[in-house]
Amino acid sequence: MITHLHPTSIAPSPFLSPGVLITRPDRTLYVSGQVGVTADGRVGDGIAEQTKIATGNLRAVLAEAGMGVEHVIKYTIYLTDAADLPGFLEAGADAVPQPGPAGTLLIVDQLADPRLLVEIEAVAAA
Amino acid sequence: MITHLHPTSIAPSPFLSPGVLITRPDRTLYVSGQVGVTADGRVGDGIAEQTKIATGNLRAVLAEAGMGVEHVIKYTIYLTDAADLPGFLEAGADAVPQPGPAGTLLIVDQLADPRLLVEIEAVAAA
Amino acid sequence: MITHLHPTSIAPSPFLSPGVLITRPDRTLYVSGQVGVTADGRVGDGIAEQTKIATGNLRAVLAEAGMGVEHVIKYTIYLTDAADLPGFLEAGADAVPQPGPAGTLLIVDQLADPRLLVEIEAVAAA
Repeated sequence: MITHLHPTSIAPSPFLSPGVLITRPDRTLYVSGQVGVTADGRVGDGIAEQTKIATGNLRAVLAEAGMGVEHVIKYTIYLTDAADLPGFLEAGADAVPQPGPAGTLLIVDQLADPRLLVEIEAVAAA
Repeated sequence: MITHLHPTSIAPSPFLSPGVLITRPDRTLYVSGQVGVTADGRVGDGIAEQTKIATGNLRAVLAEAGMGVEHVIKYTIYLTDAADLPGFLEAGADAVPQPGPAGTLLIVDQLADPRLLVEIEAVAAA
Repeated sequence: MITHLHPTSIAPSPFLSPGVLITRPDRTLYVSGQVGVTADGRVGDGIAEQTKIATGNLRAVLAEAGMGVEHVIKYTIYLTDAADLPGFLEAGADAVPQPGPAGTLLIVDQLADPRLLVEIEAVAAA
């Protein structure tokens, strides 16, 4: 069972829950950081396309476990440029279930490949 | 059951355990990265106040799950400036149970909002 | 039970699985970010030695839980310089089980100590 926690003392977010509690999950899925690279190795052009490819990859991993984005309990999002945040939020919105999962968003120097603009890591449970 | 692991081959830390083992937890809590922002959206002034607000937010999420900081099994701490580390450790010390949880501390370019100096993410179990 | 997921729509990696699914683990281990520092506090010289010390520390924590690297289900790797990636991959290859765990690799500004070049965080399950 999954319970979303929203203490009133924490400023609300449109996307994330401050806490997500999981009671005895049957299955827990760790999804590697997904990036905007297609199966044939092409790197997406700009934040919108990279986000679409990365969330598509995320959905593919979830699907192999019989899960969907509604099973995500924790996102960790890495962007290489804070200016990409609006484009990321717009292109990635359909991968965010309601109520939202727990999450952290960071701006880092660089991802594993310097062409990458976004990386999306997830934990899911069912 | 939670077991704290301290191999003798690893340099001891005053705050963290090198490993924390959880045996069949009933409940696992993922806490979103908590920052120094109050419920009405005010950003704390400096590392000490931001740390106090962030650990207060963390405690509020834990409390909603019937937990306290003693249930934290993993912290991930993000600072935007290594010079803030002493101030963070002093202001945040009371949120670190003994024996300490597992943890990682990183210096990153920027958090989701450029005014933020610290973000505290946690996993807890009971 | 641990199942490694490799959707065909995701470019294959020689090291990592896109997803790792854990079904009702008996024990879950959170390993603190391990760095290239020996028990007596000496910082390793260069990426190869720091990686060897860090993976040795990781193995020591796993061993205290009766586990080995084959039980790692998620790695998070932090490097401070993308130029260290080849050296890290060569020195750390023997800590990567096959099929690979889930993982994320990031380049960050700095670790807790400016002399540190690599930090390795892990979740393991049995």
